[in-house]
Parts: sequence; C-alpha cells; structure tokens
Amino acid sequence: MTAPSGSLRGASPRGRVWAHVGQPFTETAYDVVVVGAGRMGAFAARELRRLAPALRLLLVEEGGLPNEEGATLLAPGVWTARDAPPGREAEAAWTRAQLAATLGDVQFRAAPLAELGAGADPHPDARPTGEALADWPEALALLDPVDLPWARVDAGAATFRPGAVALNAAQEAVRLGADLLLNTRACPGEGGRMTLERLSVTNTHEVVVHERRAVQAAQVLLAAGAAGPALAEHALGVHTAHGRAYRQAPRLERPSGADSPTLRAGGLTLRPQAGGWTLVPAIWHRDPQGYVPAGGLLTGVLTGLRRETLEDLVALMDAVPALAGGGLGLGRSLSDVPGAWLALPGGRPDAPPLWQRLDDTHTLLLGGPLADVLGLSVAHDLAATLAGTEGRPWAPAD
Amino acid sequence: MTAPSGSLRGASPRGRVWAHVGQPFTETAYDVVVVGAGRMGAFAARELRRLAPALRLLLVEEGGLPNEEGATLLAPGVWTARDAPPGREAEAAWTRAQLAATLGDVQFRAAPLAELGAGADPHPDARPTGEALADWPEALALLDPVDLPWARVDAGAATFRPGAVALNAAQEAVRLGADLLLNTRACPGEGGRMTLERLSVTNTHEVVVHERRAVQAAQVLLAAGAAGPALAEHALGVHTAHGRAYRQAPRLERPSGADSPTLRAGGLTLRPQAGGWTLVPAIWHRDPQGYVPAGGLLTGVLTGLRRETLEDLVALMDAVPALAGGGLGLGRSLSDVPGAWLALPGGRPDAPPLWQRLDDTHTLLLGGPLADVLGLSVAHDLAATLAGTEGRPWAPAD
Repeated sequence: MTAPSGSLRGASPRGRVWAHVGQPFTETAYDVVVVGAGRMGAFAARELRRLAPALRLLLVEEGGLPNEEGATLLAPGVWTARDAPPGREAEAAWTRAQLAATLGDVQFRAAPLAELGAGADPHPDARPTGEALADWPEALALLDPVDLPWARVDAGAATFRPGAVALNAAQEAVRLGADLLLNTRACPGEGGRMTLERLSVTNTHEVVVHERRAVQAAQVLLAAGAAGPALAEHALGVHTAHGRAYRQAPRLERPSGADSPTLRAGGLTLRPQAGGWTLVPAIWHRDPQGYVPAGGLLTGVLTGLRRETLEDLVALMDAVPALAGGGLGLGRSLSDVPGAWLALPGGRPDAPPLWQRLDDTHTLLLGGPLADVLGLSVAHDLAATLAGTEGRPWAPAD
Repeated sequence: MTAPSGSLRGASPRGRVWAHVGQPFTETAYDVVVVGAGRMGAFAARELRRLAPALRLLLVEEGGLPNEEGATLLAPGVWTARDAPPGREAEAAWTRAQLAATLGDVQFRAAPLAELGAGADPHPDARPTGEALADWPEALALLDPVDLPWARVDAGAATFRPGAVALNAAQEAVRLGADLLLNTRACPGEGGRMTLERLSVTNTHEVVVHERRAVQAAQVLLAAGAAGPALAEHALGVHTAHGRAYRQAPRLERPSGADSPTLRAGGLTLRPQAGGWTLVPAIWHRDPQGYVPAGGLLTGVLTGLRRETLEDLVALMDAVPALAGGGLGLGRSLSDVPGAWLALPGGRPDAPPLWQRLDDTHTLLLGGPLADVLGLSVAHDLAATLAGTEGRPWAPAD
C-alpha cells in the first residue's frame, strides 16, 4: 500500500489497493465511483484516469480481479467484424486495436473465424467447407461438411482473454491513480451516498460483512454486469427493462492447435482454447425473473448443462458429430460446467453494449453478448462523456 | 352410469363417465386412449367418434371438465383471420365454423378485432383510431389515440369460451360413445401399456392415488397441453424440442359492453369479458426448464404478475393509459392472477398447433398460442388420420 495520493492534475501517483479487510479504508468522498471491475468497469476506470486525471476515482469490486462469478471471465473472447452492428464498424475496429496493443498481454491472437452453414443460396463470400478449412484438419474433423457445406471465413477475426482485459485495465487504472477496493459490495443510494460493505470469508466459507463504510460520490457508474439493472432498481428505485440470461460454456475435448480457427454453426461458437474447444451457445432470449439455473434432464439423464443448451447441442449433433462423440463436458450438476449471468441490454439477446443515465448521479454501464466487439468503445464513450472530452477516437475528425 | 357399451359400428350407445373413484373402473383395453380433455383432446375424441365409431375410445382427464389448471380455460378465446399462418386460412375458417355452429353454446360472438399501432407507414387497411373505434367509446377510452393513431379492424373476428369448447366437445364425444374417465392421471408406457392412477382428495386437500388400473391401448393421443412433451420424454423416453410458457391473464376493471371489440396493441390483447376486460399478454419466448412462476417485483413492490408481463404492461402505459389507472388486477401473489402453462410447439411462441407421431403407438397433440384459430382443425386432422379418412373438410375436393 502506498501513502494517500494527492490529486495533482495530470501527475497522479499510483492509486491505492485494498485487497482485504485487514487494510483500513478511511476515504469518505470521491469524484467518481465505478461499481464493478469486470472489463466494462475496469476499462471505463482506466479511460477516466487517462482523460480526466483530476477526478478522484474509486473502483469497487465485490470479488477479486476479475470476479470469478462475473460474465467477463466466461465471455468467449472472440472479436469478429461480423458481430459489429451496421454503422458501428469503426468502433469495433477501435476495440480490436485496444485489445491488440494497449492493454498488455491479453493473449490476443489473430485467428480466423469460419461461419458454417447450409442452404441453396450461400453468401457470395462462402466457399466449400472442405476447401476453406483445408489448412485446419483438426477443425474440419469436428464437422460434417455434407450438413455444413459452406464456410464463410473472417480472416480479420481474433481471440483474446476477457478476464485478462479486466485485470490489465484495472491494474493500469491503478497505475494511473485510481483507487481499487476489492471484496467489497457497493450499495448505491440517492444523491451518491453510497454504503460500502467490506466482505470477508469465515472458517466455514461463509461470506460476511466485516464492516460498512459510507462514501459520497459525485458520479457513480454501475458496471455490475447482469446485476446492474437490479441494483439500479432496488437501491435507486429506477425501473429498467434490461434482462439477463444464464450462459454456460462447456468444454469439448477434441484437439485444437495454436492456429486453429474459431468456428460457428447454428448459433454455436466453438473457440479453440487450451488444446481443446470451448463451446459458447447462442443466447436466444432472456431468462425470466426468478429463474434459478439448474442442470437439465434429457430423456431422464441429469446433466450439468441447462436444458435449453442441451437441446441446442442435440440439434447440432448431425452437423457437428464431435458433439456426440464423448468429448463433451456435460457434467452431472450445474457446478460442473462454467456458467455466468450475462446482461441483455433492453432484454434483447442481440443488443450492443450501452450506457444509460439513471439520475443526476448514477449511470448504468452494460456489456452483454456483444461486449467482445463493442464493450471497450462503449466504456470509452462513457468515460469521455464524463470527462467532457469532445470527439471519439474512432470517429473521423471534422 | 350406464351399462357397458357394445361396439356396433355406426350405432354406438352413449359412453360411460367415471367422475370419481367410487365408481368402479374395470375396463382393460381400448382402441384409442386420449390423454387430456382440454379442447384439443376433447375435440379429437369427438371427431374420432364421428369418423371411426368402431374404435373403442377412452378420454382420460387428470382434473375435471375442463381442467381448472389447464391452458384451455385460460385461453383468450379470440378468433381472427389475422392469426392464421399463410396458407392455412381455410383451416382457420373451418375452425371458426365449428365454433360458431357445431359445438353447442360456447358463447360464440362475432366481435371485431382492432389492431392498434403507430408508425409513419400504416397498413393500407388502417384507419384513424378515433374514427375506427367511434362506435365503441368504452374501447376508445382505454387508449391514447396520439400514441396509437392507426387501427386495423378485422370485422370477421369473434370471441368464444375455450372452456366451453372443451366441455361441449367432451360431452358430445360421450354422447357418441366415448368413455370418459375424470380425475385420473394417465402414465403411458411402451407398446400402449398404460397405467391409470385414479385420484381422490383427502380431508386435508391432498391429492392421492386411490387406485391404479392397467389399460392396453392400441393408440394413445397425448393431448396433455404443456405437460405433453414432458410426458413423452419421461414415460416414453422420446426427446422433443417443444417448449412451454407460463401466461397470466389479469383483469382490467374498466367498462366493456356486449358489443365491444377486442383490442390489440404492442402484442397485448384486451378482450371484452364479463363487463370488463381480460388482458392477454404476448408470449415472446419459452420459459426455461426449471422456471417456477412467481409474482414479480417492480421497483420493490411485490405483485401477482410475473415480471415480464409487468414490464410489458409498463411499456404500454403511455399508449394504453387505462393500464395505469388503478383498474388493473396486479394482485399481491401469483395465486391472485389467473395463469396457466401453455405449450409452445417447437419451442416457438408463434408456431401453430401440431400433432407428431412419437412411436408406433403414441401421438403428441399440441395446441399452444394459436389454438384459438387452428386448434380444432389440427385435432380433426389427427382424428381423420387415425380413422383413415381421406380428404379434409377445409380442402377443396379434387
């Protein structure tokens, strides 16, 4: 820990980090408090430190860095121009450049993405699957090219580790002067009067509130992922219509190589990772309020995958025979399969990240399903707005 | 109760009815057992008696007639040509004719349906809302014609009571010779070996199995609504990808008249009923396996409406100010608002009713969201198929 920082404009020393309750926290006021150190919150904090170094900034995270239960750690980490909504290609390209070069080692790797499909009227860019994947027999071996005869390859796609993005962005924010308070639950209140609950874990693995601290924030960014809208509603009484969905990412233990492409078929993404494949199922719609994720039964057999994901995988077993071949990590209960709640902006599975003013003090920042492609640019846009910065780096100057 | 029926072709006496466990049930074999006496099963039974009177038929219902927890009783009972999928208009018209004339009193009433909307490019048939609804001030009073400037009226629409359809169709099936076994849970098994669990209610309102009977069926129709796919999977091991959704139909206590039109706006149907309005929310998507319906919180207030329906109603409060006016039956817990599980064929909210062979013995029959418009024709089609009848009454003869 360092001594308390001053707030000299443009010359901020390194910020302080409180990792556990043994370190006394006595601060009482900040210009900006960012709630949540996933990639959205951490990157917004980093950009705020760069654009508005005069603002005293606190980044609060309920877990560690990154939160093991958050959506960031489970995000696919697949950048492809295909996922950029029309008109936002420049923002997506800027996000790619940030991932490639400015955030330290995030295991960024240029890796083609092949979208596989059937149908009599393929996209003009599509090529026969066997030809398009000829360089990657390990990828071709997963598929049935008769069921998926066409492949459309995005040669400019890339993979990266979203968890490393959050970690590196938070660490850089601290280097640039942000304070970081870990293992702390933030309870926003009206007018920026916030209660911070510092958490510790008992011998019996129970999470308890060790102490409560009051902090006054001029501006609060709620970047708590899928929990953000509920926080806005319960703490501030602001109703939003955002949704969430529980997504699981099972493993497929079939060999992948260091240069294997990412594959997509029927909404399912197969991302080469750690010598095998991580499956990222499509999100078709939000989950209703009150839904508790549970392992699904399939013709009487209990698994660790939710039923809807099981059905998607069963539907793809003809086209992707590897799914039926025994290497699929179905698990036996929910805890066997990595999963996380993902925010769905506007309740829609295809909506881009967004920020939204909730009141004079609070702003909600949501990543969601397209955060791999547009998350950093939207977080930057919010930081630049708060900093009063004109122009955006992806927009052509007048 | 009558004496056992013979099976004289074309001259079947009235079937028998077992309403409670005090009436001994000793039958051991049927040609056809229909599981579920909602409108789909009851109408299929009635049509089978008409088309194939030689087949000994048993209709089994877990509850009463109709089942108070089933989807039939809660269905909107709104027929409109607008809901007929392209190419199925003749079937829909045949269903309307059945409702209007052949099923006894189902409170069939020709009642226009007005679809309300906004947008700069209204449908060519649309007229200004104030003009289109001029004859029905009680309907116009619910809306803001500035937010909903256009109305598209289907003058051929109608309303009816789906519960009465199920009741009358089942009673007519019995008149035509079908046996009817109420308060009995059917557990299908391979090869048509079925266990019938006759249920009774104890002094403490607990439902218990009073006795089990084995019955052999040559053909089994599973017409158990939203429970049908689970029955197919658990009892027969046949995986299907059908879904279900929990739909609630809250009341809006604002006056309606005997000739009020049905209204639709933003997916919400407002059906005039019993001097007020019944609200039928849109179904946007299936609910996940494991979802337990619960009253939703809205900015901290507990209601009897699920959150998703609350959000839909909140989103419509500007366009339909009556929703915000205090007459809306929000309730305080789930049991305050009528609701039921609805089957979603193929897991889709807009799929028409269907039947599907599960194996040599079992056929699944699903109504779902479009059962008001196509339910009876699909049930007829299944009955005609089992009866070996060529041609369909809605299809032009060659």
